Amino acid sequence: MIIVMRAGASKEQVETVINKVHSFGLRTHPIYGVTKTVIGIVGDDKTRIVEKMQSMPGVEDIIPILQPYKFAGREAHPENTVIELGGVKIGGDSVVMMAGPCAVESEAQLLDTARYVKEKGASILRGGAYKPRTSPYSFQGLGEEALKYLAKARNETGLLVITEVTDPRNVELVCRYADILQVGARNMANFVLLTEVGKSGHPVMLKRGPSSTVKDLLLAAEYVIIEGNRDIILCERGITTFETYTRNTLDLSAVPVIKNLSHLPVIVDPAHATGRTSLVEPMALAAIAAGADGVMVEVHPDPDTALCDGPQALTFGEFDSLMTKVRSIASIVGRSI
Amino acid sequence: MIIVMRAGASKEQVETVINKVHSFGLRTHPIYGVTKTVIGIVGDDKTRIVEKMQSMPGVEDIIPILQPYKFAGREAHPENTVIELGGVKIGGDSVVMMAGPCAVESEAQLLDTARYVKEKGASILRGGAYKPRTSPYSFQGLGEEALKYLAKARNETGLLVITEVTDPRNVELVCRYADILQVGARNMANFVLLTEVGKSGHPVMLKRGPSSTVKDLLLAAEYVIIEGNRDIILCERGITTFETYTRNTLDLSAVPVIKNLSHLPVIVDPAHATGRTSLVEPMALAAIAAGADGVMVEVHPDPDTALCDGPQALTFGEFDSLMTKVRSIASIVGRSI
Amino acid sequence: MIIVMRAGASKEQVETVINKVHSFGLRTHPIYGVTKTVIGIVGDDKTRIVEKMQSMPGVEDIIPILQPYKFAGREAHPENTVIELGGVKIGGDSVVMMAGPCAVESEAQLLDTARYVKEKGASILRGGAYKPRTSPYSFQGLGEEALKYLAKARNETGLLVITEVTDPRNVELVCRYADILQVGARNMANFVLLTEVGKSGHPVMLKRGPSSTVKDLLLAAEYVIIEGNRDIILCERGITTFETYTRNTLDLSAVPVIKNLSHLPVIVDPAHATGRTSLVEPMALAAIAAGADGVMVEVHPDPDTALCDGPQALTFGEFDSLMTKVRSIASIVGRSI
Amino acid sequence: MIIVMRAGASKEQVETVINKVHSFGLRTHPIYGVTKTVIGIVGDDKTRIVEKMQSMPGVEDIIPILQPYKFAGREAHPENTVIELGGVKIGGDSVVMMAGPCAVESEAQLLDTARYVKEKGASILRGGAYKPRTSPYSFQGLGEEALKYLAKARNETGLLVITEVTDPRNVELVCRYADILQVGARNMANFVLLTEVGKSGHPVMLKRGPSSTVKDLLLAAEYVIIEGNRDIILCERGITTFETYTRNTLDLSAVPVIKNLSHLPVIVDPAHATGRTSLVEPMALAAIAAGADGVMVEVHPDPDTALCDGPQALTFGEFDSLMTKVRSIASIVGRSI
Repeated sequence: MIIVMRAGASKEQVETVINKVHSFGLRTHPIYGVTKTVIGIVGDDKTRIVEKMQSMPGVEDIIPILQPYKFAGREAHPENTVIELGGVKIGGDSVVMMAGPCAVESEAQLLDTARYVKEKGASILRGGAYKPRTSPYSFQGLGEEALKYLAKARNETGLLVITEVTDPRNVELVCRYADILQVGARNMANFVLLTEVGKSGHPVMLKRGPSSTVKDLLLAAEYVIIEGNRDIILCERGITTFETYTRNTLDLSAVPVIKNLSHLPVIVDPAHATGRTSLVEPMALAAIAAGADGVMVEVHPDPDTALCDGPQALTFGEFDSLMTKVRSIASIVGRSI
Repeated sequence: MIIVMRAGASKEQVETVINKVHSFGLRTHPIYGVTKTVIGIVGDDKTRIVEKMQSMPGVEDIIPILQPYKFAGREAHPENTVIELGGVKIGGDSVVMMAGPCAVESEAQLLDTARYVKEKGASILRGGAYKPRTSPYSFQGLGEEALKYLAKARNETGLLVITEVTDPRNVELVCRYADILQVGARNMANFVLLTEVGKSGHPVMLKRGPSSTVKDLLLAAEYVIIEGNRDIILCERGITTFETYTRNTLDLSAVPVIKNLSHLPVIVDPAHATGRTSLVEPMALAAIAAGADGVMVEVHPDPDTALCDGPQALTFGEFDSLMTKVRSIASIVGRSI
Repeated sequence: MIIVMRAGASKEQVETVINKVHSFGLRTHPIYGVTKTVIGIVGDDKTRIVEKMQSMPGVEDIIPILQPYKFAGREAHPENTVIELGGVKIGGDSVVMMAGPCAVESEAQLLDTARYVKEKGASILRGGAYKPRTSPYSFQGLGEEALKYLAKARNETGLLVITEVTDPRNVELVCRYADILQVGARNMANFVLLTEVGKSGHPVMLKRGPSSTVKDLLLAAEYVIIEGNRDIILCERGITTFETYTRNTLDLSAVPVIKNLSHLPVIVDPAHATGRTSLVEPMALAAIAAGADGVMVEVHPDPDTALCDGPQALTFGEFDSLMTKVRSIASIVGRSI
Repeated sequence: MIIVMRAGASKEQVETVINKVHSFGLRTHPIYGVTKTVIGIVGDDKTRIVEKMQSMPGVEDIIPILQPYKFAGREAHPENTVIELGGVKIGGDSVVMMAGPCAVESEAQLLDTARYVKEKGASILRGGAYKPRTSPYSFQGLGEEALKYLAKARNETGLLVITEVTDPRNVELVCRYADILQVGARNMANFVLLTEVGKSGHPVMLKRGPSSTVKDLLLAAEYVIIEGNRDIILCERGITTFETYTRNTLDLSAVPVIKNLSHLPVIVDPAHATGRTSLVEPMALAAIAAGADGVMVEVHPDPDTALCDGPQALTFGEFDSLMTKVRSIASIVGRSI
């Protein structure tokens, strides 16, 4: 932690700041520059106490040195985390494909889709039972009925099931049916929910909030980890920018950035970010090329009639074509499917 | 609702689209331009069905015409909503001052602050019992203990109490102690929580999410309203931008924009947006000048020792000075305090 | 300047970095923390050399300590700069009103407007002769003809004239007619133009680029200052964000932020930021309340027929009403007009 | 063009608007909905006149239907533009690699680099002679001396030369030495410069401005095209967002979006967007996977000593490794090098 004093800070102001730091039991290393004095502090576990000093006279800035995420960061855990679940490894050598409808609409819709994506090489089935929607007038999901269909699809196909949980009161229920809990982008900073999924012990896929930096995402993961749950998958799904042609802007550079800062696996969801079917394939391929551990896509037997996000779902044929190309790109970057 | 066909769309594509619209029981008004055909649709209650048509061949864009928020918009409710509560009118002729510590830390801290801000003209006491924090290592609030102090401060001073609720399971508990429920910016799109506070019947202050447009904020209000709760206060508290000197960018133009689009009262929180004490006063004054119905500020007996957001809290003296100026500005724009 | 070494950096890596810094003739102050080593460097004039070291093995981050703007910053020039020009003081006790049409369209349009705004208390006449437009199909301005009308309006009314210069080859020409050169937001980072207006010796109003931080704006001012021209007015006119209801988001917090970081006067242009007439008055009043040294507005005898930005221009009556309120707000914050 | 009337607009207001449109010689198609009236207008060449009507009483919104770029859009020119230059085709089946130092520093530095990148498969040499820098204290380029080295490198290696032009007065000079003119991101909206490079007849690479939408980029291209110059290459190089870990956020979805909206070739510059060497390779590969027509990278014999943007330049070895992988990815998406 570094305290930067203003250019004109008086000797007394510098001393008062140093004494304050000492009062917390921390050591200081002042550096007297030509224009400014900088005070290095050893002992960053008291970061939050020192940060309060920002409004002291003469203080210009306080710069933290240690990463604020202790367990999600690569500093504390240099090797990649590989989550093993029912024979599927997430974050390992293989690229993982998560596919299925945006929302579970019926047993037939889900089972048809599940069988198809399984046959083409997906290993995880996605499907929304509880849908957080911007408008209260949109379809909100079938709830537990959808969870039952998901479990049935898993039993029949052997696919793992991932589904979103939106309510801390439902975590236990969803855990009964699903293999992986998804925390949606809108809930990335819902710390009450993060704590509950942390306690659940189930693997969690945490989607990046639309206005969250990578650092914010890692801090959200930290909320889950400190409950004892280290099986976390991070998911890039687009950030809010000024560009309006796409719904959000997919930040693919977040993939290598997260790989650099953290040991956790990274999945990319190209459909929600872009909001347009025609962009799903190029961005899915780009995600694999950028080093993602997997891709999540929406597949629907008949996108035109989908109750949720139809315009961004792939048809069966489009998914087939995507899988062929994903396999090729994966092999170029040293991954299998 | 308008469907715009692509420049090269064939006659058959236009007809297929028109027939599809008719199949929903809607009427069409095609306009054949020189370059493009545009299809006007009458009957916007089926908006979400028509939106699915975006991926049909030849369709370039689908443009909604009606505002997506039915009850939060001024179209449906032209007069300003004024919330009356214990003698205080929010959204009326007076400007409302909400003041108090970021987090309730102790009975003494809260009561001292409450007495002071009451004396200087505040009508609502703020104070966090449950604090959603970016880092799990930060102070998370005193919980029910804090709620009891808030109730005590209300009884003693006559101030109304506003406090944040973060967990749908706590809504009932918080309602027992507080007059107004606050939904924080991070939870603006937590639709589970919005539904619960909607059911509670308590007035709700809804903070704009950092990556939410004004339209998104009004849609979030709609979630509360459709549960039967129309006592909603909107709060501008800064949006996420590229500027790093301030924590967020306070979007004061949102005040007249919301006043234009909606009938609900608007409060401005200048402290969380900017993250710097020195910006609180100028932005609070600017908020009143821009037409806000009130301002929420943090006041702390000793900001340097605050357990939460110390650098942005005002001292008692600073609050006193602010109130004097707020009164003057309010009178210029035809408001009292 | 501070070099932060990675958590696992080896002793050799730290030594190599220290030796490299010494090779530039700079002194180092290493601080060995529990987790990381931090190297303080004295002598920030070689900042750009040290920054190259970012890719050296073991280096995590390099943090500059000194402000990168030497002359635009308040550190080097603690007192406010007041620009005196033809009896008008910009940045002093008075609030300065700049008013006139977006584009000069005819002699009559300009003179009518000039006379009116002068009568109501404006001291500077604005009017575009060269208009940078997003689309090449929009009106681009009358050029030198417009400059002549501006000069005529000045002679007749005594108003100072400000007009935009977009081409380095035109700077000399524009200087012949105008009192203040305006560099538009799109040209804030056009360093060739900044250098030319710097050499001109004419006062310059520099508009903040839509994706520029306050720091970027001060660095742009620095380009003008190092040519020997210190008469610079900064102008906040909105930044690019995700909000689409307004054209840009007016960042009023930039006003006190710039006042804090720099000694230069700050003007606010509420019309270009918002793109809507109805927002001009509330945001102009808010700007004065926030501490701006003046406001620039568009006034047009008949906004419906304006060749440029009609929807954001005020009518004469609206300007009159605005001036009355501006005067009142100004007096509250201790300013006159 | 569609005019949307407010919900409560009176019959008279609707008629006044319709009459106004007729007065421009345009035809109207009003659609009377249950809540709102919408007026379709045929004849979009008068768009800018109709837009002025936005402030008329009762008008809520005016929605353009035609794309504002006539020549840059795919509507007017369905086939891909392929620029042929000295045996190199840009926008055709091959992926084009542009490589070289950020700034030309010396003859030896440039020639060494040129020979190396040529040998490894690059077809275009980049190198800055005029550098637009955020700070006036940074290295600004060698100017004409650098241009001479570039020409020499071209003669010796057969590489095409691309270099940035920043000053309209220098366009002719730069054309004497370079094959392709680059307009940098900061100058994308410098319409004076766009007009000059349009007149030059030289192929132009136009970098997307950091706060520019894809639509803005196509409108900037339109400025060049209307001067008669259709040889335009578009370049995605990152947009300004709230994420601070990378310098900008590379918007790779812009690649398929531009391909969808326009016929012009698209190049990606992953280095300036990210500002970090470690991200160059993954983002370059992702760009090719997303369908880019080429990639521009910085290569320097000794990045640690580079006078400009050293931290993001590749060493010779890194470039070699990149080329091997680029070739493989290109072949997967059906492209050669």
